[in-house]
Amino acid sequence: MSVPPENGTSLSGAESLLHTLVACGVDTCFANPGTSEMHFVAALDAVPAMRPVLCLFEGVATGAADGYARMAGKPASTLLHLGPGLANGLAGLHNARRAQSSIVNIVGDHATYHLQYDAPLTSDIAGFARPVSDWVRRPASARALPGDVATAVACARRSPGQIATLILPADTAWAPAERIGLPETEMLPATTPESTLEHVAGLLRGPSRSAMLLRGDVLHGQGLQWAARIAARTGTKLFCDTFAPRIRRGRHHPVIERLHYRGDEVLRQLAAFDQLVLVGAEPPVAFFAYPGRPSWLVPPDCALHTLTLPREDGPDALERLADRLEAKTYCPPARLTVAAPQSDESLTPDSILRCVTIDLPEDAIVIDEGLTSTFPNYDLLDAALPHDHLNLTGGAIGSGIPLSVGAAVAAPTRKVVCLHGDGGAMYNLQGLWTQARERLDVITIIFANRAYAILEQELDRVGARVDGTRSRRLLDIGDPDLDWTALATGMGVAAERVTTVAAFRETFGRAIRATGPILIEAVIA
Amino acid sequence: MSVPPENGTSLSGAESLLHTLVACGVDTCFANPGTSEMHFVAALDAVPAMRPVLCLFEGVATGAADGYARMAGKPASTLLHLGPGLANGLAGLHNARRAQSSIVNIVGDHATYHLQYDAPLTSDIAGFARPVSDWVRRPASARALPGDVATAVACARRSPGQIATLILPADTAWAPAERIGLPETEMLPATTPESTLEHVAGLLRGPSRSAMLLRGDVLHGQGLQWAARIAARTGTKLFCDTFAPRIRRGRHHPVIERLHYRGDEVLRQLAAFDQLVLVGAEPPVAFFAYPGRPSWLVPPDCALHTLTLPREDGPDALERLADRLEAKTYCPPARLTVAAPQSDESLTPDSILRCVTIDLPEDAIVIDEGLTSTFPNYDLLDAALPHDHLNLTGGAIGSGIPLSVGAAVAAPTRKVVCLHGDGGAMYNLQGLWTQARERLDVITIIFANRAYAILEQELDRVGARVDGTRSRRLLDIGDPDLDWTALATGMGVAAERVTTVAAFRETFGRAIRATGPILIEAVIA
Repeated sequence: MSVPPENGTSLSGAESLLHTLVACGVDTCFANPGTSEMHFVAALDAVPAMRPVLCLFEGVATGAADGYARMAGKPASTLLHLGPGLANGLAGLHNARRAQSSIVNIVGDHATYHLQYDAPLTSDIAGFARPVSDWVRRPASARALPGDVATAVACARRSPGQIATLILPADTAWAPAERIGLPETEMLPATTPESTLEHVAGLLRGPSRSAMLLRGDVLHGQGLQWAARIAARTGTKLFCDTFAPRIRRGRHHPVIERLHYRGDEVLRQLAAFDQLVLVGAEPPVAFFAYPGRPSWLVPPDCALHTLTLPREDGPDALERLADRLEAKTYCPPARLTVAAPQSDESLTPDSILRCVTIDLPEDAIVIDEGLTSTFPNYDLLDAALPHDHLNLTGGAIGSGIPLSVGAAVAAPTRKVVCLHGDGGAMYNLQGLWTQARERLDVITIIFANRAYAILEQELDRVGARVDGTRSRRLLDIGDPDLDWTALATGMGVAAERVTTVAAFRETFGRAIRATGPILIEAVIA
Repeated sequence: MSVPPENGTSLSGAESLLHTLVACGVDTCFANPGTSEMHFVAALDAVPAMRPVLCLFEGVATGAADGYARMAGKPASTLLHLGPGLANGLAGLHNARRAQSSIVNIVGDHATYHLQYDAPLTSDIAGFARPVSDWVRRPASARALPGDVATAVACARRSPGQIATLILPADTAWAPAERIGLPETEMLPATTPESTLEHVAGLLRGPSRSAMLLRGDVLHGQGLQWAARIAARTGTKLFCDTFAPRIRRGRHHPVIERLHYRGDEVLRQLAAFDQLVLVGAEPPVAFFAYPGRPSWLVPPDCALHTLTLPREDGPDALERLADRLEAKTYCPPARLTVAAPQSDESLTPDSILRCVTIDLPEDAIVIDEGLTSTFPNYDLLDAALPHDHLNLTGGAIGSGIPLSVGAAVAAPTRKVVCLHGDGGAMYNLQGLWTQARERLDVITIIFANRAYAILEQELDRVGARVDGTRSRRLLDIGDPDLDWTALATGMGVAAERVTTVAAFRETFGRAIRATGPILIEAVIA
């Protein structure tokens, strides 16, 4: 469905595209444009409802779109320059797919008649796009474009969130399109059948020791309260996935135990249960395979059941399940406290996380790519004021800085705190510049241990021995040490290096009270 | 063909892989490893003939492998971490494919039995690899690995240079392989048939006005001299492609006119010729399509002929053609000079290129991703001492820093001078860290105009008008300005900002006399 523009003016494909995106509720574009996208760029002046955000690398654009979708609950678009531009954003899209985030990628291409000449920038864009996209289309013409854009948005919005990639030939952008696409009818998430609810209610009423594994929007909306009531009523233990895309945590909120990164620990966590009920989650599996250790992490005597699939309406299913179980009461957990760090304590991930927990403002957004620094200190944040916690979902490291860009754009009144390992932060450090340009309210904390510390921990588990300097140097990112204060200030972000707990707490407190981006390099080596 | 190791020790897949690479002449690996590559990393201590070079982003690794191949004339390997690691390197591989560089990618994957669980890092690695690879294989077992590695190297070495991608499941790396692969018989470049030589000789002897368009190894070896003799004998004009992967230039060397980036100019350059002979080159086409302008850049009354295809032995064909034409004499061009910049001149791309031309040491390697800064000043470098000139080949910007890493590793006794636009240099800036760690002898010159200047020039040509601040801000990378001296020192590379010609010349001269990486931010805004 499409309509002509109200004022009767002529519309190019690019203008139609922008108007259609806005009509379908997509009003933010994380962009790294090139020549083939110049008509899109020019059309921005005619469509002020679209907010363009320039990124200096495409991994920032796709990661920001992921962070935006997680916090806004709707898609942003990206704008990428042909195959190589999309390629630079693929790792971010991989993470976004694992986060079930909604994204509409606009990838410019050569004019249709130019492809036959195999000019240097020609490549198989659809080939690059398919492994990370639920939907890929190259509009047949400018006149087909408005409808295709509306379909792209509808597809991206489909529960639980999908990735739609629209390939936009330059001549489709500059030819007349004349019409604006209208939003397609929203595909609501599927409703969980009564029979499933009855079955699961029976399981939870019985004498078996039960656990639930939660993922998706049940972890950050009303569903969380329903899950907690069910847990209180039936004694069911609540778990979340190791890499939940977004989870609401902190004081008064139910404490959901996170499955461990290590498979042996997961088996230990689940050992006490006769049955595990999946709510929007996949069964737990090991992150990597390790020789002689299992990949499948459901204990052999634990029965697996499914309450909801990811595409189903999880909060609704939990509410109806709570009704059946007459689970009416939510008892908030006892108030947790963490010990304030002493000024003579050394600066460690633990002491840093305690500072963050104590001083985190209400409704902050915590982006967690701290890996070895934050895994063991994850639970501390349950004692903080209520906040949202966003994780690296697909294992493509370097997501933290881009996610923080997108989250801050989506939620401009909330403080974003990004916890990042130093090795991982190098992958998309260009996002700091976008934080500076857009004056985003982000505190980035770099855990500077000058190593790929997670690899050092993994060596033993994969049965590899690194006993020589040549191999050791591939895990060590010192020589030379990265100077994160220089890197941040080089992109316009204020930065401080701290080496003591007292300095960290003072700097973090000041950053919390201020507005705008700042980076704190916490030297924990 | 494979053999057991000489000392009869047991070999894992990873050890077999490394020994086989070395046996096949691949002794350098640009690596960004993860857990699934730990056995490869551990095996490095047992195979000291392999040099690992750590890169903090995969785009650096693939771009470095490209630069290495161009200078070493043989492949390096990359080591990449599953699908997302490969994805981050795809833009570099796109450029490498356009450069016809030889590369062997080793992409780690989950253990074969782990794939069924769709763990977070699982993705369609072969799907990502295919658009940029001439050959993709996942070995069936550790015992098949040595043979597959030898085939990968043979494939990469096939004329004119190919990209081979080997997907290495973790259990293939850690299982016993026991044997070492031996090099396959080298596939020599195809010999151009006599009939083709006779045909082209006839064309060049005739009265038609002739031009030759050269690409590939004819631009940097003995072929260049043969081409110059043919030109002198027959009056044939010599052209090179706009984005020649590598060309030998400078004093005493033939001056080869470069086809312009702009199609209108190419048509003007070729207007005087009745026939154009391709030597390892494709016919000239426009880099982008522009409304109302041609994509095909061979003038309608210019006949197109082919002396050699890219996979043929170009230098041999030129030598035999020179013999037929009795083209025995090479007359070096008259010595060119450039005016030394006056100290009161302003710092511009032109004055910078004149400084570089005058002070460039013999046998330097110039990496050129200066785009708007270097396109108009390209000819100046013909007056420099003899050197190699490497271009961005595939239009995926950000190649300069990685190329300079690879070129410096391949040619450690030669000075590398990397000319880079500021917008483009942000894509793979992490390569500066590898320059510092490996003490590479690279001078990086950043043309800091604080804009995507090439896009500003392209706007008009695509018929787009940008007259609003919102669109304008997508072309402007100021606000905040990048501080390249901070970015470089943050990664351990000495850096200076210069704003005058005198300061540039002094700094550049000092950098030429010193050894090791340095970055000069030349503010030309």
